[in-house]
Amino acid sequence: MRLTPEQIAAFHRDGFLVLPNWFTPEEVDLLRTETYHEFGNDQPGRILEKNGAVRTVFAAHKTNDTFARLTRVSKMAVPAAQLLGDEVYVHQFKINAKLGLDGEQWEWHQDYLYWLKEDSMPTPNVLSAVVFLNEVDDFNGPLLLIPGSQKLGTIDLDVEKKYSELDAAESWKPTLTADLKYKISKRTLVRALEDSRIVAAKGAPGFVVFFHGNTLHGSSGNLSPVDRLSVFISYNTVKNALLPMDKPRPTFISERDFTPIDTLPDDALLAPLDSHTSPQSEQLAPLAG
Amino acid sequence: MRLTPEQIAAFHRDGFLVLPNWFTPEEVDLLRTETYHEFGNDQPGRILEKNGAVRTVFAAHKTNDTFARLTRVSKMAVPAAQLLGDEVYVHQFKINAKLGLDGEQWEWHQDYLYWLKEDSMPTPNVLSAVVFLNEVDDFNGPLLLIPGSQKLGTIDLDVEKKYSELDAAESWKPTLTADLKYKISKRTLVRALEDSRIVAAKGAPGFVVFFHGNTLHGSSGNLSPVDRLSVFISYNTVKNALLPMDKPRPTFISERDFTPIDTLPDDALLAPLDSHTSPQSEQLAPLAG
Repeated sequence: MRLTPEQIAAFHRDGFLVLPNWFTPEEVDLLRTETYHEFGNDQPGRILEKNGAVRTVFAAHKTNDTFARLTRVSKMAVPAAQLLGDEVYVHQFKINAKLGLDGEQWEWHQDYLYWLKEDSMPTPNVLSAVVFLNEVDDFNGPLLLIPGSQKLGTIDLDVEKKYSELDAAESWKPTLTADLKYKISKRTLVRALEDSRIVAAKGAPGFVVFFHGNTLHGSSGNLSPVDRLSVFISYNTVKNALLPMDKPRPTFISERDFTPIDTLPDDALLAPLDSHTSPQSEQLAPLAG
Repeated sequence: MRLTPEQIAAFHRDGFLVLPNWFTPEEVDLLRTETYHEFGNDQPGRILEKNGAVRTVFAAHKTNDTFARLTRVSKMAVPAAQLLGDEVYVHQFKINAKLGLDGEQWEWHQDYLYWLKEDSMPTPNVLSAVVFLNEVDDFNGPLLLIPGSQKLGTIDLDVEKKYSELDAAESWKPTLTADLKYKISKRTLVRALEDSRIVAAKGAPGFVVFFHGNTLHGSSGNLSPVDRLSVFISYNTVKNALLPMDKPRPTFISERDFTPIDTLPDDALLAPLDSHTSPQSEQLAPLAG
């Protein structure tokens, strides 16, 4: 499951790559079952929407064997390493619920800006691989991306602040802070769209999107009754390991064990549970077959 | 500008009717200019989003001559009367801003349910005609509708409450009240979609959507930099006039003058301002030409 040179070139041009049918229906069924299991589990990494519905569950790969394997199967970890050009580890793992009717909007943002400011990640050479577990259409909050927006580089917060002040000069504009800490200004969005357009990642269950840490993305609220479950695995290179900090974020949000992934064969996801080492063990052994 | 029998049949089948290019670019320019003028005007009918941006301006037709004429031009008022089968008056007038990046989501709802509960409107034989003043695409929060959903009738709030309690039995579901007072339950939405699908009203500036008071509709937040301005004129029949109430809502939200509309010719919108009677006058006279 290595990417072709054309796929790698497309990722570097667009800042993302969509891979249809990357997981089989059986694998998707397993991942969906495990996802609902995690939603029902009151754990520190479980974050709620404003309305109280589950929004995100962080770090399920540290306790759930299926998700541990998901981070390691070749078709996830090998493309990540190919696209970043180095050995990778999992910086962040989260399941986004985006539940039918209850899942709320995510405003436009760059992931890397958070990891730079909150985690001292030195460079934007990082990506996320997202597995979608439902049919995604226009109405259940597809991941929206702006092709080429990673080429704007990492957004400068001082510039954004000045842009927002300029925009707020009109009296009917927002007076309150946005939901996101590092929300981009409308002017930056307009700039990103000058030679581009918004693209919605839609498709049958099991498709995957790899996207660069500086690619602008967001999503609408889910106005469909169909959940839009997705698993985000953010792979970082070992060379881009986080710098030491006084008060690092909890490791369920920001990993500080930079040991590179020991990959598993692609059929490992559906292999019996007792055939491999527990994810809690110090050294994860690859499956024999 | 009378509707054809086929258009009337489509409205009764689907609960809505989309009319492309119903207003000319010049008319749309005028309406857009007047819309921004109203946004800047701090008035009782101006409602803000949670983020402080303008969400809605009610009743601009009572003070703004252009919007007064808009409610009366034949291509708005005549189809309304045709579709409802009786003389009409304007029950409610509002401009929805849905500003680029700042416009927030509207959850699924039926307009008539509000007018029944809040205004004592006796029957659902009422409709809204919406003029869209921008190009609407998938990303600036198109009006979403469910064809045929008006045939479910007016939603019963006791049934909805029971449905919501059943849904809330799962622990990852919402615990807080929704934004909308009369939000429909997921079960009702699923029922409405059993033999239907969600449709997005998209198109070039100047298209109009007529939709029935019981048609389920909503819209996502605006994740595009392009505003999605729209003017909602809710026409009610004189026979369906509101019943007396102890504490009626303000007339800028709910009209209690049931005088039928005196229509204007379709070119009236762009006619010079001094050529017709002021909208504040008791009796609105039709334009000569």
